[in-house]
Amino acid sequence: MPRYKLTIEYDGSPLSGWQRQENAPSVQQTLEEALSRFAGAKPVVHGAGRTDAGVHATGQVAHVDLEGEWVGWKLREALNAHLAGTTVAVLQAEAAAADFDARRHAVHRTYVYRILNRRAQPTLDRGRVWHVKRPLDVEAMREAAQGLLGRHDFSTFRDAQCQAKSPVRTLERFEATRSGDEIRCEVGARSFLHRQVRSMVGSLVEVGLGKWSAADLRAALDAADRARCGPVAPSSGLYLVEIDYP
Amino acid sequence: MPRYKLTIEYDGSPLSGWQRQENAPSVQQTLEEALSRFAGAKPVVHGAGRTDAGVHATGQVAHVDLEGEWVGWKLREALNAHLAGTTVAVLQAEAAAADFDARRHAVHRTYVYRILNRRAQPTLDRGRVWHVKRPLDVEAMREAAQGLLGRHDFSTFRDAQCQAKSPVRTLERFEATRSGDEIRCEVGARSFLHRQVRSMVGSLVEVGLGKWSAADLRAALDAADRARCGPVAPSSGLYLVEIDYP
Repeated sequence: MPRYKLTIEYDGSPLSGWQRQENAPSVQQTLEEALSRFAGAKPVVHGAGRTDAGVHATGQVAHVDLEGEWVGWKLREALNAHLAGTTVAVLQAEAAAADFDARRHAVHRTYVYRILNRRAQPTLDRGRVWHVKRPLDVEAMREAAQGLLGRHDFSTFRDAQCQAKSPVRTLERFEATRSGDEIRCEVGARSFLHRQVRSMVGSLVEVGLGKWSAADLRAALDAADRARCGPVAPSSGLYLVEIDYP
Repeated sequence: MPRYKLTIEYDGSPLSGWQRQENAPSVQQTLEEALSRFAGAKPVVHGAGRTDAGVHATGQVAHVDLEGEWVGWKLREALNAHLAGTTVAVLQAEAAAADFDARRHAVHRTYVYRILNRRAQPTLDRGRVWHVKRPLDVEAMREAAQGLLGRHDFSTFRDAQCQAKSPVRTLERFEATRSGDEIRCEVGARSFLHRQVRSMVGSLVEVGLGKWSAADLRAALDAADRARCGPVAPSSGLYLVEIDYP
């Protein structure tokens, strides 16, 4: 069967995450049900990043094998028609090599984490940001974030449920910038551990609040001990924005 | 009674607009009910711009007279506590001159209109943008928009329900810029007629689609005839972003 590459956007608020769960529809299930209505029985969609419940995406990538031959734009239009009323949309669909694997072939992943840093609660961005009321020192955050760059054992910032064989990852980018009331953290690596971005951002906010120094953040990394992680940032502020392939 | 100036943000999606209506709660009513729970009986909130149902704001301004003396930040905190669960938040509250009038003293109003210009339906921006599927020529829009600048009779772009005495307004800014899939129109004037921004943006989109030329847009203005207006853009893409005072 021919293989296709899909680029996907979703509002994760009402979803249980990428993978099938019991409590709410998942992104995977939403896509598979839409596909099954017009592209043959039981398609299986393989995503590049298994985002958690409530996490959003503007550039998730997946592959799927379908029975028929599809021109990319027609597949995208048909899928979006069947996704109407959901919080999932397909930005692009294209024919892919028979061995293309969205997860294994990815060479870089970029996440953005949005923090709304003001007293008033979010209105337009409700469910789209982490609301931190106390003022954050973004310069301190920016400097401390640099201390996590490079190849390290990221056990401190790894969820207890993480199934990766190794806790070693290479963090290529971790930037914090302020624009008005919003702080954006951009995080890039070939791959991440489970909840690594939210664990690092939650710890970085401890620096922004003045509770931790840059040295404290680095010491937490070096301890390679989950107990040294700061509070894990909520899913509402996290976006999977880009996945790169060779 | 002392007078206060409020700067207000709201997600207009579930609201009937600024002024009280029958079908859904209004911004004014939401604010007045929150105030009445802690700041004395029957406060009346006067807004600078009477936004329609579904229109958003990131910088609406209002004034209100309250029985007690309030420090600005305490009033903001109390109001936001009582606004929890609504889609309205107060960004700033401050003491104002006894004769301060949010509507009459405003010298400039800025609106932003957001268009999502791509095939796929919005997910994260659902209810926050106007979704236009066909490609828009933003350069053509930018050029045509310039033709509306200045002092004119804007009857073409004025809702039939508009209660303003004169249809003459001075349009100071009308810019269209693209960033990826999004086109933002920034519109500025001392004051606007009812639905003027949505009427102008809807007509400008006719230019972007290639149905109208810049000369057609200008001819529609010059006709000073409501029948010459293009389709009125939906409320979901409109944001009242700033109101300036001397």
